Amino acid sequence: MPEYKVPLKDMNFLINDVFDYPKHYENLPGAEEATPDLIDAILTECAKFSENVIAPLNQSGDKAGCKLVDGKVITPDGFKEAYDQYVEGGWQGLSHPEEYGGQGLPMSLGIFKSEIIGTANWSWAMYPGLSLGAMNTVMLHATDKLKQRFLGKLVAGTWTGSMCLTEPQCGTDLGQVKTKADLNDDGSFNITGTKIFISAGDHDLTENIIHIVLARLPNAPKGTRGISLFIVPKFKVSEDAEMGEFNNVVCGSLEDKMGIKASSTAVLNFDGSQGFLLGPENKGLECMFTFMNTARIGTAIQGVASAELSYQGALPYAKDRLSMRSLTGKKYPDKVADPLIVHPDVRRMLLTQKAFAEGGRAMVYYAAMFADKITHSDEKIAGEADEMLGMLTPIIKAFLTETGTEAANLGVQVFGGHGYIKEWGMEQIVRDARISTLYEGTTGIQALDLLGRKVLLSKGKNLRLLTNPIFKFCKDYGTVSRNPHKKEMTKFVWPLVKLTTEWNYITYRIMFKAAKDRDVVGSSSVDYLMYSGYVMMAYFWAKMAQTAFEKLAEGEGDAGFYKAKLQTAEFYFDRILPRTRGLVETVLADPKSVMQMDEESFSFE
Amino acid sequence: MPEYKVPLKDMNFLINDVFDYPKHYENLPGAEEATPDLIDAILTECAKFSENVIAPLNQSGDKAGCKLVDGKVITPDGFKEAYDQYVEGGWQGLSHPEEYGGQGLPMSLGIFKSEIIGTANWSWAMYPGLSLGAMNTVMLHATDKLKQRFLGKLVAGTWTGSMCLTEPQCGTDLGQVKTKADLNDDGSFNITGTKIFISAGDHDLTENIIHIVLARLPNAPKGTRGISLFIVPKFKVSEDAEMGEFNNVVCGSLEDKMGIKASSTAVLNFDGSQGFLLGPENKGLECMFTFMNTARIGTAIQGVASAELSYQGALPYAKDRLSMRSLTGKKYPDKVADPLIVHPDVRRMLLTQKAFAEGGRAMVYYAAMFADKITHSDEKIAGEADEMLGMLTPIIKAFLTETGTEAANLGVQVFGGHGYIKEWGMEQIVRDARISTLYEGTTGIQALDLLGRKVLLSKGKNLRLLTNPIFKFCKDYGTVSRNPHKKEMTKFVWPLVKLTTEWNYITYRIMFKAAKDRDVVGSSSVDYLMYSGYVMMAYFWAKMAQTAFEKLAEGEGDAGFYKAKLQTAEFYFDRILPRTRGLVETVLADPKSVMQMDEESFSFE
Repeated sequence: MPEYKVPLKDMNFLINDVFDYPKHYENLPGAEEATPDLIDAILTECAKFSENVIAPLNQSGDKAGCKLVDGKVITPDGFKEAYDQYVEGGWQGLSHPEEYGGQGLPMSLGIFKSEIIGTANWSWAMYPGLSLGAMNTVMLHATDKLKQRFLGKLVAGTWTGSMCLTEPQCGTDLGQVKTKADLNDDGSFNITGTKIFISAGDHDLTENIIHIVLARLPNAPKGTRGISLFIVPKFKVSEDAEMGEFNNVVCGSLEDKMGIKASSTAVLNFDGSQGFLLGPENKGLECMFTFMNTARIGTAIQGVASAELSYQGALPYAKDRLSMRSLTGKKYPDKVADPLIVHPDVRRMLLTQKAFAEGGRAMVYYAAMFADKITHSDEKIAGEADEMLGMLTPIIKAFLTETGTEAANLGVQVFGGHGYIKEWGMEQIVRDARISTLYEGTTGIQALDLLGRKVLLSKGKNLRLLTNPIFKFCKDYGTVSRNPHKKEMTKFVWPLVKLTTEWNYITYRIMFKAAKDRDVVGSSSVDYLMYSGYVMMAYFWAKMAQTAFEKLAEGEGDAGFYKAKLQTAEFYFDRILPRTRGLVETVLADPKSVMQMDEESFSFE
Repeated sequence: MPEYKVPLKDMNFLINDVFDYPKHYENLPGAEEATPDLIDAILTECAKFSENVIAPLNQSGDKAGCKLVDGKVITPDGFKEAYDQYVEGGWQGLSHPEEYGGQGLPMSLGIFKSEIIGTANWSWAMYPGLSLGAMNTVMLHATDKLKQRFLGKLVAGTWTGSMCLTEPQCGTDLGQVKTKADLNDDGSFNITGTKIFISAGDHDLTENIIHIVLARLPNAPKGTRGISLFIVPKFKVSEDAEMGEFNNVVCGSLEDKMGIKASSTAVLNFDGSQGFLLGPENKGLECMFTFMNTARIGTAIQGVASAELSYQGALPYAKDRLSMRSLTGKKYPDKVADPLIVHPDVRRMLLTQKAFAEGGRAMVYYAAMFADKITHSDEKIAGEADEMLGMLTPIIKAFLTETGTEAANLGVQVFGGHGYIKEWGMEQIVRDARISTLYEGTTGIQALDLLGRKVLLSKGKNLRLLTNPIFKFCKDYGTVSRNPHKKEMTKFVWPLVKLTTEWNYITYRIMFKAAKDRDVVGSSSVDYLMYSGYVMMAYFWAKMAQTAFEKLAEGEGDAGFYKAKLQTAEFYFDRILPRTRGLVETVLADPKSVMQMDEESFSFE
């Protein structure tokens, strides 16, 4: 297994130099405590915990998996001890209000934390990760009384939470949910039904688990308009937050999965379990979106994590393993052969991983600034941040998990046949990463959200939220003569201007065509999203390049680091960005070639 | 697990209509017996065996894996019984000379057979598959005496063979091989050394295993010029082919792999094991290429198999699973939701799988015609076929395994979260497919073989072996007015002419640049190979379209099948072929962006 080293230098480059988080926090109400020193201390501590405590459990966790024994879920050795340390460190409530025992720090710090622990051990990180979604949902939609009852122990990490959406007959199409909620005399509800694919749905890390459950009230309208949200604890909880008797939430089985084997994926049977309404009746799906957005950004992080960990595994192997000679002559004549890294194609693979890991990190950290603002006291700022996040979320969720999966596969490829052997840990990254384009809305669902709901419903207006900052950047650094790096930036700025213009153009082309034929949307949505992702990532590589030029000119810091940034940016523009050339054609292709085949003509005996 | 149905209709379309194998066999010496009736009987019987006997062992084999117990390898339940049936059916020697007990049929029939059994159960098919490589090597390079000693039982399937190349310190770079061969008084050799990654290297399907081993004679030249090839049986074999005492070939351990778990991957320790020289001293690598080429075509088949099986799994699910409504209005108003297949993005994924499976099959069946001719009695024909196969092999090996892996991943994607669950069998296809771009030469190695050895060493001449038939096809069917389908073929012929011209153009550009800078080759080789693959596959889709037009005009056969062919061809040209637009840019990009980074600048603490 790659020995994970938290890339603190790269994280700090983004936090301090590229995005100037210290200034961002200064302007963010309630973020006064997030001083550069505190950020640094948090990242350093989190890195220590992750490198020393949970990273070493990643491979053993995969091997052991979760087990269901006598109705109880047993997580792999060491998971509970690590979780106890995490709780002791007060990590769970980092970004949650002090009134509920949290540290009250900005959401973005929680995102940096999630990246660090998630890269160290994604399966382990899912337990506290899912709980965050539950906590956020409770915080935003529960009555004060319910918050008093449930939130404190979730924020402390004493209990964890889970999200119970999927049922055997439906995942994406939640309008088909059948789980029932019947009103009791005391105002609580009896919840009955079966939920599947419940991550962290049952485990032995904490005594109690607080499930957030989608269910139907009697006589609720059909479809998505008749779904309500409930808090359903595994063990009943008294009003003063004390744990009581078993609440009939039974783990029926655990799924046997391709990867993230140490993360329990439960089938949960609710049998008249006591639940409490969360938010308004029949508005469950709307309330659920709070969680969805958290979870989607969380999954985008998995894309970065997959690329980073796999890169950290492939790089030392490429330096150590001796195979063949460079085509331009021996590079290490005293060795029996040259190391893999002299070979251009191996470098191409490594640089692709690097470009995706660092470019993806930049995209997530950019989105995190808006995540900080969605709870802003100024409603205008909050609303704008919410709209922006609405555009960014499907792109980072889908694009970064696709590129993360690609990077993980490249990591195996660098190892050759050895990459296929479990011992090295590289194939585990592929198996763990593979879920990321599936859960929390598949790539296809994200693409429909982006193109159908966000771009087209706003008549293209919301695309400008993404493209205007890029145009402004290009103007500021490409045409304004006072930028001393204008000339060197040309190679980034011009392609970026062209592509961003083209992005607008194809959006309008799709909009006109979609007015006549709705299949235009579905048949081009994934390619449109991927195109958008490549352009967005190009923007961040250009932005990182500009910062690197500035830092090099200032003569402070590690010049080698900044030069490597510039070289990776060049690689991205030269070798990755051309993928948009195929995508622009398929995005504009006629839906006919996708739609014309009759269902029965897909196969012949 | 998908229930595998052999796509006999598609196979027959290629064999009879597109490539006219009956005519090909008429002109092939020794292939007189391969009449259309016989081909049909063989395919039908092979389909029955594969569907009924080995396909049902695919998922259980993955679950059980191979085990090493008390030094003995135990294959999953049912594997031996299935192998016995295979031997009884005389399947192993299908394409081998009657003089050694084979059926003497053309190589291509063996390739069709390999596709059928390999799609049913790739892990199982590796045991007889590896043996084919050993048989071919013995047949071409062994003395008559050694053939009498070993070949009969290999052809019968009584024993299997394995290929022992890789050692812990080297896989691709076989010049580093350390295994020793010391001459005995009786002319045999003592072989000592450790080989790893030996597929079918040990198992319980047959009593004896005949290993083909690369080793070094004392005082042999360093590097690849000092490697010789040896036959080393697990149990000694007398001159009259009787099995004797144990030959000190010990299975040290089995690898724990990502997939193909039912295929044993052994570490073999040879300890003074008796071996026999195969071919001339120090010419082991040249002799090995016989096996390599067989194995590479075999691996190309795995690409087709992955795409086909995954498509066969995804299609019924897409028809059955109800989720959401079509954006153009309900398609099945009486159901709670529409099936997945109404959604454009699901169709895009299914059609991509279909295009890769059927297009890949066409590429393999085309190559199989040249495989038939490399042992042709007319040396000119044999030589030309060998040159052609030299061009086709790296493309089909690398391109079809890359597209096969993509298709397998799309199969999981169609299933959403369910694709990640083992029960459905879709993720197994991804895990099994993942080895295909690694073994028998990674994609990177194939790309260097194609661009460096085949194209550039021939000064571009050999590229014309591939492009000339395409130009001829385009002329025959696009410009010759007597083609009644000329007008409809335009949409395929013109893009194909343009791309094939561009293919020549980029080849010459690379050639000029590579003369000054060898890194041009390595930095563009994989993208060049993928570009070549997409153009080649476009050619075969155009060819299949022309045949479909002809068949539709004749009014015979299943019109729906031919229409689906045309629609899949349109999909391929519209939605897949544009990928060449990105590749043409990266192929021509300056190597600088790949080469400029210092090794120490790839990471910073």
